[in-house]
Amino acid sequence: MNKTLSYEYTHGGDIYDAGGLADKGALDFSANINPLGMPERALAAAKQALEQSSIYPDSGCRRLNAAIALHENVAPQRIFCSNGASDIIFRIVSAKKPKKILVTAPSFADYERAGRGFGAEIVHCVLHKEDGFHIDSRIAEAIHADQPDIVFLCNPNNPTGCLTRRGIIAEAAAVCEDINSILVVDECFLDFVPDADSYTAKTLLSDYRNVVVLKAFTKTFAMPGLRLGYALCSDETFIDRLRLCGADWPVSNVAQAAGVAALVNARAFIGKSVSFVDAERSRLTDALAGMGLEVYPAQANFIFFHCPWDANYGMDLGRELRNKGILIRDCRNFVGLSPGYYRIAVLTNEKNMRLIESLIEVRATWQSRL
Amino acid sequence: MNKTLSYEYTHGGDIYDAGGLADKGALDFSANINPLGMPERALAAAKQALEQSSIYPDSGCRRLNAAIALHENVAPQRIFCSNGASDIIFRIVSAKKPKKILVTAPSFADYERAGRGFGAEIVHCVLHKEDGFHIDSRIAEAIHADQPDIVFLCNPNNPTGCLTRRGIIAEAAAVCEDINSILVVDECFLDFVPDADSYTAKTLLSDYRNVVVLKAFTKTFAMPGLRLGYALCSDETFIDRLRLCGADWPVSNVAQAAGVAALVNARAFIGKSVSFVDAERSRLTDALAGMGLEVYPAQANFIFFHCPWDANYGMDLGRELRNKGILIRDCRNFVGLSPGYYRIAVLTNEKNMRLIESLIEVRATWQSRL
Repeated sequence: MNKTLSYEYTHGGDIYDAGGLADKGALDFSANINPLGMPERALAAAKQALEQSSIYPDSGCRRLNAAIALHENVAPQRIFCSNGASDIIFRIVSAKKPKKILVTAPSFADYERAGRGFGAEIVHCVLHKEDGFHIDSRIAEAIHADQPDIVFLCNPNNPTGCLTRRGIIAEAAAVCEDINSILVVDECFLDFVPDADSYTAKTLLSDYRNVVVLKAFTKTFAMPGLRLGYALCSDETFIDRLRLCGADWPVSNVAQAAGVAALVNARAFIGKSVSFVDAERSRLTDALAGMGLEVYPAQANFIFFHCPWDANYGMDLGRELRNKGILIRDCRNFVGLSPGYYRIAVLTNEKNMRLIESLIEVRATWQSRL
Repeated sequence: MNKTLSYEYTHGGDIYDAGGLADKGALDFSANINPLGMPERALAAAKQALEQSSIYPDSGCRRLNAAIALHENVAPQRIFCSNGASDIIFRIVSAKKPKKILVTAPSFADYERAGRGFGAEIVHCVLHKEDGFHIDSRIAEAIHADQPDIVFLCNPNNPTGCLTRRGIIAEAAAVCEDINSILVVDECFLDFVPDADSYTAKTLLSDYRNVVVLKAFTKTFAMPGLRLGYALCSDETFIDRLRLCGADWPVSNVAQAAGVAALVNARAFIGKSVSFVDAERSRLTDALAGMGLEVYPAQANFIFFHCPWDANYGMDLGRELRNKGILIRDCRNFVGLSPGYYRIAVLTNEKNMRLIESLIEVRATWQSRL
């Protein structure tokens, strides 16, 4: 694998790579961003803030914390904002100084990357294809057996889209509490799930001081460019430690202003997004399944599937679509997954239709070669 | 000291603190930002980038690295950009995993903060008032004696403004090389020094793979709000480690675009800034000295002084000016400094005149009380 490819497979959303896809108007299904785009109000506030860029941002993100506090119904001193949720993952590791970290396989790569960077041992709780990659009570057992210092759970999981019931998460939180460990529940995609309130680990925060819920403006409010994420935790000392374990001005003035504005009428915006994504996801799921792709049940704004064509026809679906100016997330570099698994974002109807048409074309081309 | 005050003294530039100074149009001499403001071209580019905020930023900052490479005459693979130089300080510590860090006292607090956060022992090379707080050959001796894993030098030093000759830095680099340590030279203010080229440690990079030069767009291009700094190092493996020791998208799309645009004709902009600051600094220095403040020689865009009034009149100059809507940097929380030391930025003529008038008023008020 050459250098360009290793970059390409690192994360979704890299349209800047060799080939200049960014300049060619590539359709990017590899990053899971709200197809409704950034709220107008947030963009306007960001523009206004930009004019004040010669002033340091508020290092304490006071207005933003207050806005998040209202939105999440969590006290402001239990909130820490930073330069994207991924920055907070690294801060959590710095703050806890773990010897061992437990992650599910597959899951978002940065948990493991942050742990390895710090020098921690990584233990995987392997999720099985046969179980639909679900996270179940085995996670609590694994925590009990492996005694990690930090456990990262992603809900819904990235890239599989699997949702984990709150009972399972509470079990994990309790075992973590017993062994003085932190349970990080990454809910960066949960806002897109219709029944999000019954899944969120926020309701566990008051009982479990060792639970950290991670959220981001990135996906929900379609602003990955600006970098803004936050952590919720009822252990205020730990929130203070997150602040100390990194630079003092983590969030730009522009991101702070956009964040505050995005949270005005956020419930309505999120509701609209959920409905939109729900309808498009159903259509897209049906189309994919109809052409023989093995689609996993999805409730967030992305779809995970296995492509039997890769093995059957000897093709590489990611490369085929890339040649048509469409990026999807090849999941082969997720620990626990083999080639043939892909993740796509649910985008607007027009874009989703273009993806479906391209998939049909790709399949026809390869079938004709048989 | 209450919570508000501890915030206030943490860094300069906090105009968001209780009292709402941000909303009252406070004059901020506590942050050392280019008084010419952000280049128009950079602001325009940032505005344009803002419209693309629903796309992930380039995690590799490829265009920005290419622009910095031209500007600094350093190969792009020897450059790492991040969310402000302060973020890079934390990454350097994470990458090197030091047992011991050597810093001068006084100096910028984040070196020590990053080291303590990691759990490293901090050793101070104390700079003496009697020597004008200069950094001399004692630094190489201290490195030899203390065997730190990382040494942080700030040139010109913050808050004293003292410049360190390149020969002294080369000596330090050589000792660091012998003991497998990293020498970080923070040149965030060096662009404002008229003879910067003869001081920069950039020319040491090819001989010393263990030297890291830190720079920022923050001060030079007056964009602290956007968060953008970079490191230069000829050890490309170390540059890669910096990338791995933190989040994958450290720089927002807005900051990347502003940075690229700021570097167009940057030499001319910096030249103009140096002349402007030079003239204003002279005027300001003369005025301060004329009223009995003990001004240290300054060549960058800030002035360090000792205020004998605090002791003589029992006043607190910082508080007095704050009551007049002017923020200056009280340096009492710098390790190695006692109350009575202050740092002020060189701003525009109008603002500098307002500061001078306020100082005259403050002195008159207190003298009349004697």
